[in-house]
Amino acid sequence: MFRKVLIANRGEIAVRIIRACRELGIRTVAVFSEVDRNALHVRYADEAYCIGPAPARDSYLRIDKIIDVARWAGADAIHPGYGFLAERPDFAEACEEAGIVFIGPPPRAIGAMGDKATARKMAKALGVPIVPGTDGGLSDEDLMEAARRIGFPILIKASAGGGGKGMRIVRSPEEMPDALAAARREAMAAFGDDDVYLEKLVEGARHVEVQILADQHGHVIHLGERECSIQRRHQKLIEESPSPIVDEEMRRRMGEVAVRIAQAIGYVNAGTVEFLVDKDRNFYFIEMNTRLQVEHPVTEMVTGVDIVKEQIRIARGRKLRYRQEDIRQTGWAIECRITAEDPFNGFMPSTGRIITLAEPTGPGIRVDSGVYEGCEITPYYDSLIAKVIAWGETRGEAILRMRRALEEFRIIGIQTTIPFHQAILNSTRFLAGHFDTKFVEERFSMDDETPPELEEVAAIIATLVAHRRGQAATHVARRAAREIPGWKWAGRWEQLRRGG
Amino acid sequence: MFRKVLIANRGEIAVRIIRACRELGIRTVAVFSEVDRNALHVRYADEAYCIGPAPARDSYLRIDKIIDVARWAGADAIHPGYGFLAERPDFAEACEEAGIVFIGPPPRAIGAMGDKATARKMAKALGVPIVPGTDGGLSDEDLMEAARRIGFPILIKASAGGGGKGMRIVRSPEEMPDALAAARREAMAAFGDDDVYLEKLVEGARHVEVQILADQHGHVIHLGERECSIQRRHQKLIEESPSPIVDEEMRRRMGEVAVRIAQAIGYVNAGTVEFLVDKDRNFYFIEMNTRLQVEHPVTEMVTGVDIVKEQIRIARGRKLRYRQEDIRQTGWAIECRITAEDPFNGFMPSTGRIITLAEPTGPGIRVDSGVYEGCEITPYYDSLIAKVIAWGETRGEAILRMRRALEEFRIIGIQTTIPFHQAILNSTRFLAGHFDTKFVEERFSMDDETPPELEEVAAIIATLVAHRRGQAATHVARRAAREIPGWKWAGRWEQLRRGG
Repeated sequence: MFRKVLIANRGEIAVRIIRACRELGIRTVAVFSEVDRNALHVRYADEAYCIGPAPARDSYLRIDKIIDVARWAGADAIHPGYGFLAERPDFAEACEEAGIVFIGPPPRAIGAMGDKATARKMAKALGVPIVPGTDGGLSDEDLMEAARRIGFPILIKASAGGGGKGMRIVRSPEEMPDALAAARREAMAAFGDDDVYLEKLVEGARHVEVQILADQHGHVIHLGERECSIQRRHQKLIEESPSPIVDEEMRRRMGEVAVRIAQAIGYVNAGTVEFLVDKDRNFYFIEMNTRLQVEHPVTEMVTGVDIVKEQIRIARGRKLRYRQEDIRQTGWAIECRITAEDPFNGFMPSTGRIITLAEPTGPGIRVDSGVYEGCEITPYYDSLIAKVIAWGETRGEAILRMRRALEEFRIIGIQTTIPFHQAILNSTRFLAGHFDTKFVEERFSMDDETPPELEEVAAIIATLVAHRRGQAATHVARRAAREIPGWKWAGRWEQLRRGG
Repeated sequence: MFRKVLIANRGEIAVRIIRACRELGIRTVAVFSEVDRNALHVRYADEAYCIGPAPARDSYLRIDKIIDVARWAGADAIHPGYGFLAERPDFAEACEEAGIVFIGPPPRAIGAMGDKATARKMAKALGVPIVPGTDGGLSDEDLMEAARRIGFPILIKASAGGGGKGMRIVRSPEEMPDALAAARREAMAAFGDDDVYLEKLVEGARHVEVQILADQHGHVIHLGERECSIQRRHQKLIEESPSPIVDEEMRRRMGEVAVRIAQAIGYVNAGTVEFLVDKDRNFYFIEMNTRLQVEHPVTEMVTGVDIVKEQIRIARGRKLRYRQEDIRQTGWAIECRITAEDPFNGFMPSTGRIITLAEPTGPGIRVDSGVYEGCEITPYYDSLIAKVIAWGETRGEAILRMRRALEEFRIIGIQTTIPFHQAILNSTRFLAGHFDTKFVEERFSMDDETPPELEEVAAIIATLVAHRRGQAATHVARRAAREIPGWKWAGRWEQLRRGG
């Protein structure tokens, strides 16, 4: 096994990877930016090295510095986590050149899937269903003509894209020229490449993805699907496994497609094949993420497979320990991404010191956290602070446990999206499993419509609670909260109770 | 479902039960003694009432006061947890008389199993294997004669017994009179009943128990076994499920016996049938615990069944949601009981304020805790403060995760048994699964044999760490710890690092 692994990341995912290494008896090396000096991943690692100032381009994106540290510390391998350098073929290559194992797919596979338009083309050649659209590399005129042929509404997407950047919805031919220009501009700014392609906009679609594992010996298996339709601005907020709309037969077919794609490009390590599912439960390949996903824990909780440890074993040349028939989904898992953002204020990022922190635990609850009491949330990085994952025998039990866990979760000092998640978990559509990727943006609102007199009651109660009159106030507040129909008041009260 | 449940207990188990209630949408009522005013279970419950001064006999054992609170608060049901009133038929009866549901077996079943000698007799009548021995109610002369017939070494046990009280090992006829007198004296003091019986002492025996669930409609199932041989003075310290020595066939047979016993006495709710397993893997019935066990989470983690929620559903008259064939054990779970005791000083109870607390989390880890940062550990109650439960696909993975979790667990302000657990988890015999109930007491030592010069290094490092030189010191210390063979040094260092 590796003797020492460098983790080229920060936050909860760096801690997650350190835990996996520790369980495998591998020493860990953290890297950190100047503002992350006291971050949790620095405290958890066996060794830690500063690699530059806060902006990621000066530290977490500095391939040269990271390779230097790996060499200096004698690391055998580097795990990139997600984001930052995780999907940069040049980073994987730099590791290779330095004689350090990159814990991820070969640079070739990252490259093949990094260009979304090329990936579409490849999928088409394999006979994999894709959303009607165009290839990349077309002129504005050709794209315009293709759009008319495919029919509006249509989606413009950046070939080098991801995270919704360079993406535009176009509903009529008239909007097309401006949207094209804007998308190209955004793509150039984000990825240094202004190539775009078109995709028919599938209305009412869901986002369902399949986790795969591939070893260096040609074995590929899938670990079932994740439902990731609860999104806001293309950012996933709540994920679950299995998906409420996928049955055994559909899972088998989606899994088979995912495995076929991975095999076709000689994929190695963990990866995710993303699909769009229309109202008739037809699925279409969108893209492949050549890295560990934020939402990997829901798959871990239903399959029992530790995906990060498997990544490390695969990178070390080990054969997969599972055959497809060994993989069984047991129960249901749901993940809520808790971010330092204010859901009552347009999800504005919230920074500051976490004064009080009590993370939930107990039956069926796992928390992958990147923070501790007393730590500082800075404005430099992704606002994800912790993931709460709940497992239950059924979807219902998982949801009820998640609600219980979120009620227990206490963070004082910053705003978080906990009240938002509580509201979603109370919404009828979510409970019924009836939602698509536009649910949060179009059919759900965090607007606070609490009558003003109740606002006042809430403020008084919040003050009482803050002054530690404790139990009595909590009791009164909770009773009051129950008498108000709907989640909004409860959410508002939660916010106040958390020091909002 | 019940509207409101009173929890007649404290500590981690009260919190555990409140969580189950919350997940079922049931309001909760806590009771507490004066010193427990700020205890975690009080903070977690929807309502909480003080029922008297610290000594349990004046509060947690006051049936009258608890029933009064339940009536006053309008609770439909009472969950007794474990210990305190959990196995008192008179408490179950008092609930019944007050028209409140007792979440546990009928008083009759508690009574039948409460007298250990009677339980043995019943098992014998059912054709269940029991350890050779006597019935209860015999005179000293008859016991002496029986002892000669059975053969030494022999065990004297209190009929009303439990927790090792009134128990004596006798190795020769000469020791018998004194031992009998002492056992009777102890039994009288502990249980108000001096009746004792004899059992052949099975050397090299393991303690393996089977969890059962029985509804009010005559359905009884078992959830497999737990291995509880890691004990000290008859107190379980580490439990796991499955047991390293139980195979499919043995599990089926033990399960069948456990179900047969439960059916014979008309048992309802959750219960545990305890067996002694000899070196040839023959198993003998010892007793039945008519309550929730401390170690129930290991069974929950391998079967996915929430035992506490099932208890509540059963008490409400619901039918079992499982048939025997639905129960499957997946992977392996291990529990470490973390107590406020000093393992370097004869397990002396440790009291005081918890200044810093960071409980482990992440993949495969569950913590059932009864404490929070800032809370006070008083000398009045059981010293259990938290249970760490680790799940893995294999026993090896569960152990490695547990080690990782214990390394993460930080408690400053009191002494805990964490270093003891770490030492056990490093011992070859434990890793190999080769141990019996005498392992901890006879073949394992926490004696600190670290050479004095290393003690000094440890002290210096501990000081550095305490003064927050942080990472550097931790690094040096960890490296030093690795160079010293054996666990003792690491354990000692851990203790120092934790502020010991």
